[in-house]
Amino acid sequence: MGVNVRGRAILSVAPCRMAAADLTEEAIMKAFVYQGPGKSALEERPRPDITAPTDAIVRIVKTTICGTDLHILKGDVPSCAPGRILGHEGVGVVEAVGAAVTAFHPGDRVIVSCISSCGKCEYCRKGMYSHCTTGGWILGNTIDGTQAEFVRTPYADTSLYHIPAGTDEDALVMLSDILPTGFECGVLNGKVQPGSSVAIVGAGPIGLAALLTAQFYSPAEIIMIDFDDNRLAIATRFGATTALNNSDGKAVEKVMALTGGRGVDTAIEAVGVPASFVTCEDIVAPGGTIANIGVHGMKVDLHLERLWDRNIAITTRLVDTVTTPMLLKTVQSRKVDPTRLITHHFTLDRILDAYETFGHAAKTNALKVIIEA
Amino acid sequence: MGVNVRGRAILSVAPCRMAAADLTEEAIMKAFVYQGPGKSALEERPRPDITAPTDAIVRIVKTTICGTDLHILKGDVPSCAPGRILGHEGVGVVEAVGAAVTAFHPGDRVIVSCISSCGKCEYCRKGMYSHCTTGGWILGNTIDGTQAEFVRTPYADTSLYHIPAGTDEDALVMLSDILPTGFECGVLNGKVQPGSSVAIVGAGPIGLAALLTAQFYSPAEIIMIDFDDNRLAIATRFGATTALNNSDGKAVEKVMALTGGRGVDTAIEAVGVPASFVTCEDIVAPGGTIANIGVHGMKVDLHLERLWDRNIAITTRLVDTVTTPMLLKTVQSRKVDPTRLITHHFTLDRILDAYETFGHAAKTNALKVIIEA
Amino acid sequence: MGVNVRGRAILSVAPCRMAAADLTEEAIMKAFVYQGPGKSALEERPRPDITAPTDAIVRIVKTTICGTDLHILKGDVPSCAPGRILGHEGVGVVEAVGAAVTAFHPGDRVIVSCISSCGKCEYCRKGMYSHCTTGGWILGNTIDGTQAEFVRTPYADTSLYHIPAGTDEDALVMLSDILPTGFECGVLNGKVQPGSSVAIVGAGPIGLAALLTAQFYSPAEIIMIDFDDNRLAIATRFGATTALNNSDGKAVEKVMALTGGRGVDTAIEAVGVPASFVTCEDIVAPGGTIANIGVHGMKVDLHLERLWDRNIAITTRLVDTVTTPMLLKTVQSRKVDPTRLITHHFTLDRILDAYETFGHAAKTNALKVIIEA
Amino acid sequence: MGVNVRGRAILSVAPCRMAAADLTEEAIMKAFVYQGPGKSALEERPRPDITAPTDAIVRIVKTTICGTDLHILKGDVPSCAPGRILGHEGVGVVEAVGAAVTAFHPGDRVIVSCISSCGKCEYCRKGMYSHCTTGGWILGNTIDGTQAEFVRTPYADTSLYHIPAGTDEDALVMLSDILPTGFECGVLNGKVQPGSSVAIVGAGPIGLAALLTAQFYSPAEIIMIDFDDNRLAIATRFGATTALNNSDGKAVEKVMALTGGRGVDTAIEAVGVPASFVTCEDIVAPGGTIANIGVHGMKVDLHLERLWDRNIAITTRLVDTVTTPMLLKTVQSRKVDPTRLITHHFTLDRILDAYETFGHAAKTNALKVIIEA
Repeated sequence: MGVNVRGRAILSVAPCRMAAADLTEEAIMKAFVYQGPGKSALEERPRPDITAPTDAIVRIVKTTICGTDLHILKGDVPSCAPGRILGHEGVGVVEAVGAAVTAFHPGDRVIVSCISSCGKCEYCRKGMYSHCTTGGWILGNTIDGTQAEFVRTPYADTSLYHIPAGTDEDALVMLSDILPTGFECGVLNGKVQPGSSVAIVGAGPIGLAALLTAQFYSPAEIIMIDFDDNRLAIATRFGATTALNNSDGKAVEKVMALTGGRGVDTAIEAVGVPASFVTCEDIVAPGGTIANIGVHGMKVDLHLERLWDRNIAITTRLVDTVTTPMLLKTVQSRKVDPTRLITHHFTLDRILDAYETFGHAAKTNALKVIIEA
Repeated sequence: MGVNVRGRAILSVAPCRMAAADLTEEAIMKAFVYQGPGKSALEERPRPDITAPTDAIVRIVKTTICGTDLHILKGDVPSCAPGRILGHEGVGVVEAVGAAVTAFHPGDRVIVSCISSCGKCEYCRKGMYSHCTTGGWILGNTIDGTQAEFVRTPYADTSLYHIPAGTDEDALVMLSDILPTGFECGVLNGKVQPGSSVAIVGAGPIGLAALLTAQFYSPAEIIMIDFDDNRLAIATRFGATTALNNSDGKAVEKVMALTGGRGVDTAIEAVGVPASFVTCEDIVAPGGTIANIGVHGMKVDLHLERLWDRNIAITTRLVDTVTTPMLLKTVQSRKVDPTRLITHHFTLDRILDAYETFGHAAKTNALKVIIEA
Repeated sequence: MGVNVRGRAILSVAPCRMAAADLTEEAIMKAFVYQGPGKSALEERPRPDITAPTDAIVRIVKTTICGTDLHILKGDVPSCAPGRILGHEGVGVVEAVGAAVTAFHPGDRVIVSCISSCGKCEYCRKGMYSHCTTGGWILGNTIDGTQAEFVRTPYADTSLYHIPAGTDEDALVMLSDILPTGFECGVLNGKVQPGSSVAIVGAGPIGLAALLTAQFYSPAEIIMIDFDDNRLAIATRFGATTALNNSDGKAVEKVMALTGGRGVDTAIEAVGVPASFVTCEDIVAPGGTIANIGVHGMKVDLHLERLWDRNIAITTRLVDTVTTPMLLKTVQSRKVDPTRLITHHFTLDRILDAYETFGHAAKTNALKVIIEA
Repeated sequence: MGVNVRGRAILSVAPCRMAAADLTEEAIMKAFVYQGPGKSALEERPRPDITAPTDAIVRIVKTTICGTDLHILKGDVPSCAPGRILGHEGVGVVEAVGAAVTAFHPGDRVIVSCISSCGKCEYCRKGMYSHCTTGGWILGNTIDGTQAEFVRTPYADTSLYHIPAGTDEDALVMLSDILPTGFECGVLNGKVQPGSSVAIVGAGPIGLAALLTAQFYSPAEIIMIDFDDNRLAIATRFGATTALNNSDGKAVEKVMALTGGRGVDTAIEAVGVPASFVTCEDIVAPGGTIANIGVHGMKVDLHLERLWDRNIAITTRLVDTVTTPMLLKTVQSRKVDPTRLITHHFTLDRILDAYETFGHAAKTNALKVIIEA
């Protein structure tokens, strides 16, 4: 869910509770559960049931972990209560559908979008699914999520996407959240254009997703800024034209030199801290755009005393996943290969290891991890 | 020049220096000159000459005073050196043109744009005249301006506009700066739409110019917010659907109540202080836009911890005057009457009185003043 | 449904068949039925029932007749089979809803959109409801329509609109079809702008709806072209700046004279015959747009030998009704008064008279007629 | 100038007239001159002089031949009178500039745009340079052109472009006309998007330029349609995903099959004959765009009886060359390699051979030919 986390999450591995001990075997599933700040476990849980005619039950085939999941585990996301099954990404197979579901049938292979969209409310009808009045980001947040053998997905017809035969399903797990987040919040909002100049502050998974999808529009320059040489090396392999390690505090100066003192047309914030946002303010050219992707926990200084007359735009956005069909076509036609973001594979049994690996990315060099259910 | 000034300017009225005493009578003109912080005078000056083939000399018929002029007088605008003839607005008659000027001839009645546009540079060719690499806002700032009997206007072909026969020239003085500023920076950047909701924070001349031109797009609601009941009464006469005096600090609460808790589609900042910008942050709806017009002297708090997922845009802009031809058509076809912004008339001889009146707007209820040369 | 009909429809008034004679009284309703080319009648029919969980049953309060209904009666619309209850416009009260309907409840007053939108398919999710793969224009075409006491409306949540308390319901009948048609197909597609010039060819109800809604954008000129002086007089009252009777074949010449030889920025075709489309080709300015609203029964000549280098756009569109919420706000805020299009009122019992009146508009001066059920 | 010519031009090679016999040697140059239908020659002509303060004289280094030049030679372009030096493309070195030229100096290496733009008129200020009221396509048409040792270029500051050091000048000759034509008229007007489907009808140089530049936007499919297997093979090498030879008249059927019966999002007409335009009408999807590039000599049938309700747009455009700076950046950053369009090289002395080769493309497989002066 649009967050690039550098910090560490201390995962307390609780013993599996047999909360579902009295259920028949086939009605039990494994699920990764948030148990309160610093506590989590792979539990046995009852399988979900259809509760509304627009629901589907999806058997998860692959899922992944998002930086936001780490935040939840730390207790930073108040909307997510202890007891919640985490996860808002994944691909799977439809197991059952409610009476009003018409576009999906049992057996269909699907992408589960991180955003649940009712398709009816004012926001959904404008393509702003993130603000769906009864949906939005609810999976693995206010309702149980995808890091389990099964998940109930509300508003199935407008929140699941058919998987074309023969498509790499690892790649499609990246379409649940990270690829549309980088693309919508960073690239589309940032108005990347052929021949334009782009800087991306933050080379974590989200920044790299922006980097991959920015190339849909053939910008002349993509400058990647980070403090981690490993991530910068990856960025260069992924198509960045310049990689700047800002440990010396000279990234702004270097960007200005690279752009003839003009700055970049598009500055994408992919970290979520004040310093990186101010870097974007410092390097955006007159007429340019700062596209914020990062999840911010505190206010930032907006230097309007310098920017009021610069004809810039600043955008914020929670991913709407409205571009999922478009992105699916770019994956099918090999315009982008999202599997490049995947560094590790685990089985669901080993999800605690997966969290360990993902949560210590600086050490493990993890970007995205695939968890097979 | 995009500034809404509520403060007071202490005008020290210096005796006229006879700097031009040895010139022949016809080469002498009266001009209002900034003499350093707190000092200014109506002086005699030599008439300007053509200095580049793209120049024109315009005999000023009417000019006006901008809030920015008050800032210059206070010493707040370092680019404007003592000795400068002020003024960047006006209508007049072309007196002479340089060899490369093709669109204007002596005798033509013209609007002088506050922005000088070379028409050639990267910015001008994108319609971003404000950032013209050799022009932009230079009149009455880095070169002598329009508060005089004559002015030299660089890049005449792309910085002057023909006055259609029979058009009210008082109205057209408003097209030099204030109307395009309210329209471009507030209304266009703010994406005002039929049926949408708009709030304008600041009911000074600039906010009122935004109010007048917002109505081109038939929004359902225009909420005006200020601390001055007189200005709010004017706003209501000019078409605001709601006028809120924020002296009680409850404007945000009232806007949210008026919009069913949703906020406004467009929030226009027309003051230039942190508090009014934060008001805009507080009332913008998900998916909405904050269009900044105000000239800011200090940074503001951008509450990304609340706004990062609200899908909003924030825009800044120095007026480009790229819509002057469009606005001229709206004036001619009576879609807007800019003379409603004009409260006082003076002759150039009495320009010090005009400054007194304009500089004490809270007392005089002045909006824009016309000075006839 | 986007058709401006000048022709006459010969209405054969068949005796009411008692097709529903064996039903209990409360299950019977009156309905206007197409019985094959040239034949129609007010029949008794069984009341509709919910057949899908997304359906609603609406008790019609007011409906109207569209030019397309006249075409159906002539046998020009093959998709509409004999036995069909006509009508795709109206306001009413929700009587019953299916299990999956969440936004509407019995007793809710609603506008019935002429377009049924599933809200799920590729087209609906792009806002192109007209091409909904299982909906689109089906009411009064491939399923029974609104010229009856009750109607079944599929996809209720995404095809009905709540009526705000106190809104004039005559006005809202115009929001089912004619106002969004003029606005979307003519004004939005035509990119009408403040200060721009617009010509509308055809001053029938659809052309007049375009005229009313074009004024949302404050164009400088709206030139109305027709052969009927009565309709041109109405156009002038409705805000046209020039009304041209083209009986002398000189409309093109006059438009070019009015626009200084340049042509109009937007030419709206609101008739549906080759000659009027070619008129639009003749008067569109370089860089301008021809927005087609008319329903065409034959091909037209596109003079690419003259237009290939004119930088124009030509658009076609079946109304999507995606702007219904926006238009509702403009009606509520009195930016437009659609009741100006209403010339006659009838009760459902007298619907045959209503058809007579509407079908002989040249004689009766009818624009839109309201039928109260 | 936007024309894709398949036909043959019979070049009558006239003996060189010594029209300039009495001039001094250094004032004489070689120039390719249209002498009336079917007649042309490499003549000696006086070198051009500065005639307006905004002129530059450019020594041509490389030029090329456009399909439009073949049309002129056949007598098809009435605006071009016998005696005219042809050519509207090329790169060269500035030899002299007029007094008002500020952006270029003798010695500067430049691209000569096929469109002369005054930078001042209503059209130029909107970026519609093609309709410049005193410029537009005049080079090699109404004034002498670039197929000569020297050319006078009006409005130098807004019609020439600096060549960055180290850029391949063969590639940049393609930026005078063919690349911006394919890009602006085909790709930009056609709204090519990531993941979208594109069909290009006509695989001549212009169609191939559209093919190369369409890839800036990462469409999923680019279907190329032609009658010439050689050109289709080139198209496949240049990135077309499907190449269809329409000799069997089944291209429409095949496109519909390839797109699941839906049609393409963008259909680009790059031939200029009625049949290819109608093919575009037949394959455009609902909501799609037909972008016309071809120069048409006769009207075409627009099947509004099928298209009126398809929500399509049709666009026409004479290239504006407003994207030249953007394209220059894409060439510099190797997002496109326009030299792929170049099949032959000649010296100016052998320009008649160059015309023979280019004029018999079906036999010679010529695309674009470079002529070095």
